[in-house]
Amino acid sequence: MTASIITIGEELLIGQVIDTNSAWLAQQLNLLGIRIIKKTSIPDDAISIKSTLKHAMLESDIILLTGGLGPTKDDITKSTLAEFFNTQLETNTEVLEHIKTILSIYKVGMNKLNEKQAELPEKSEVLFNEVGTAPGMLFRDNGKMVVSMPGVPAEMKHIFTERLIPLLRNKSKTTIIHKTIHTIGIPESNMAVLLEDWETNLPKEISLAYLPSFGKLRLRMSARGTDSLQLQQLLNNEQQKLEELLGEAIFAYDDESLEESIGKLLLKNNLTLSTAESCTGGNIARTLTSVPGASAYYKGSIIAYANEVKTDKLFVPKDVLKTYGAVSKQTVETMAVGANKSMNTDISLSVSGIAGPDGGTIEKPVGTIWMAIAYRDKKVFSEVFRFRGNREFNINRTTVAALNLIRKFILAEF
Amino acid sequence: MTASIITIGEELLIGQVIDTNSAWLAQQLNLLGIRIIKKTSIPDDAISIKSTLKHAMLESDIILLTGGLGPTKDDITKSTLAEFFNTQLETNTEVLEHIKTILSIYKVGMNKLNEKQAELPEKSEVLFNEVGTAPGMLFRDNGKMVVSMPGVPAEMKHIFTERLIPLLRNKSKTTIIHKTIHTIGIPESNMAVLLEDWETNLPKEISLAYLPSFGKLRLRMSARGTDSLQLQQLLNNEQQKLEELLGEAIFAYDDESLEESIGKLLLKNNLTLSTAESCTGGNIARTLTSVPGASAYYKGSIIAYANEVKTDKLFVPKDVLKTYGAVSKQTVETMAVGANKSMNTDISLSVSGIAGPDGGTIEKPVGTIWMAIAYRDKKVFSEVFRFRGNREFNINRTTVAALNLIRKFILAEF
Repeated sequence: MTASIITIGEELLIGQVIDTNSAWLAQQLNLLGIRIIKKTSIPDDAISIKSTLKHAMLESDIILLTGGLGPTKDDITKSTLAEFFNTQLETNTEVLEHIKTILSIYKVGMNKLNEKQAELPEKSEVLFNEVGTAPGMLFRDNGKMVVSMPGVPAEMKHIFTERLIPLLRNKSKTTIIHKTIHTIGIPESNMAVLLEDWETNLPKEISLAYLPSFGKLRLRMSARGTDSLQLQQLLNNEQQKLEELLGEAIFAYDDESLEESIGKLLLKNNLTLSTAESCTGGNIARTLTSVPGASAYYKGSIIAYANEVKTDKLFVPKDVLKTYGAVSKQTVETMAVGANKSMNTDISLSVSGIAGPDGGTIEKPVGTIWMAIAYRDKKVFSEVFRFRGNREFNINRTTVAALNLIRKFILAEF
Repeated sequence: MTASIITIGEELLIGQVIDTNSAWLAQQLNLLGIRIIKKTSIPDDAISIKSTLKHAMLESDIILLTGGLGPTKDDITKSTLAEFFNTQLETNTEVLEHIKTILSIYKVGMNKLNEKQAELPEKSEVLFNEVGTAPGMLFRDNGKMVVSMPGVPAEMKHIFTERLIPLLRNKSKTTIIHKTIHTIGIPESNMAVLLEDWETNLPKEISLAYLPSFGKLRLRMSARGTDSLQLQQLLNNEQQKLEELLGEAIFAYDDESLEESIGKLLLKNNLTLSTAESCTGGNIARTLTSVPGASAYYKGSIIAYANEVKTDKLFVPKDVLKTYGAVSKQTVETMAVGANKSMNTDISLSVSGIAGPDGGTIEKPVGTIWMAIAYRDKKVFSEVFRFRGNREFNINRTTVAALNLIRKFILAEF
């Protein structure tokens, strides 16, 4: 089975928006064993939509359109699709009710543009959009599926995941099974050398991809064939070999994130966690709390952007700040001990560093990050890192390093 | 003048790489007044390359290809182009010398793959690549320009900027100037009604686009013509009219973000800010501190995920939590007052809500968010929101609403 993706919208053609939708869709289709043979971006105009769609339907089994829907630009895409599939627009009462509900939540009245959003091509199946006002549409034509979804990423992802995946799973015959092994601490080039022999001897059904991200490295094995039981067995074998080769560098499998794996470790050992952040400005807390149920082990964070907050809330002595500076071993260690005391937790992690672009010195250049872990009043230790990116990169890279420090500490001590 | 962009490479079609090249190219072409009418991504195969190129040459004056060059995948694109333009590959001695020089810098010997990189289609003009080994190629055919460039961003940008822009500048006569107006608080459909008359009377040179994101809405005006002074004047006029229509719904222009505009307002009024977050888990702090120099006005945050942190650090009385619950007017108002006191700031913003997926009740369903603002001990007020997305959406939507509450408060009070 093959698919084409068509993204509609002038913003993509003038480069104002980077198209992340189609990369996400491509990944999802790939997981379903569907091969994407073309992605096209076109403006909101009827001639382009019709000619591109016609062409795509000659080449692919599934055509996914995103964008060109929404209250102000609804007309062209929807009426063009209705014309293309030789059908009429009619009001869908269920969608109309849903739009009314959504608008009432935002205390906004219904207007004629919203009413038009409930008009859908008669021949299409509605792909209900619970998170927005523009529904998706599915057309079936000569065994082909043509799907139109809004371009807003959250709405597109919702419709694809909740409405389309169940339909697509039934259609495909070859199976692709993926197994992702999440590692941390081994750079990509070193990993390639370490795995050279293993990789050479992989069975022909399995292909391997390296996916690095801010110090983490995912190894994705994809097994392709028709017998899913046999493919699963092959993957299990290779996973076992990888575990022997990589040990604790592996922190999770498949969709589990580093923050989820830390949550599990904390729960298992009945430990509570707090954080104290300076340069990361809340990104570590935000990452830890992205896990549903994090409140069972995570109590909170003091974001001590100003030095007086470090002193008042985290009990960092003023002369420590004065003598060693905010970015120092002494400061992060007292911050971590203070956070535990302040929030009554077992483990606390603290960071203080220079994210950039300003604030660097010759001794402590931009990217210098100190972090510490304290375990009640029993133990405290710290590490220094030197990253070399811009502000955004340094914050993300620090967050991953901090989470890994927590993880390694729990594995070593409990 | 119109252009099409064709990106070649499997990595784009499996979603492993997000295509940033074509957004960059689109911006560049746009600045030259060249309109992009289509972007297509295809795999490294001869049939796809030929059919896509043929199609693009019917629609556009300029066709830019990126990717599919480089030592390991050189053959297909180059030989396909040679065949397409009915010409032969021959070694270009100048390019060969250049490749030798580049490799010697990296202390790498020449191999047969590198030698092949110096073979170029006879009918093409070489677009010399000073920063890599794969040269660009320009074909001219019936008044059309077809350009092939490597996909490595730095090399592509180098060839485009140094080799192509001088050629294109002579060719194009039209200019496009953009003006983006960032608004908040008016949903897209209401905005369309509000702006209906204004939009109808826009001068023919100006087109308008609506770009929504988590409660924010960008209005992008694009002026197209030959006289850039006159276009700028037209944009200024329309911007003035929009300002009259939308007033304080406008928070920034062009590349400025909401968090940057809040930073400016705080600095201008000499105010300091702190936050107290529960359900957003640090995302508001993280967003505020993404602005370089935020430490001049932002002191920090208490992320009070556990109720005892709300009590201990933010002075929320235990019986307020018991009587009204953590997600209530009373709790967020005492949190905001407590945060100001705790961190000695002028303004504090607090949020407490149910991000989901669990924790909702009939009275307070998932997506119920309370937020409050306190100004020293002089003023405190709160608002409730009901969002309807998943955890991630609710956190992002809450963050935007919270930042807007801060902004509106400063505008109203100072």
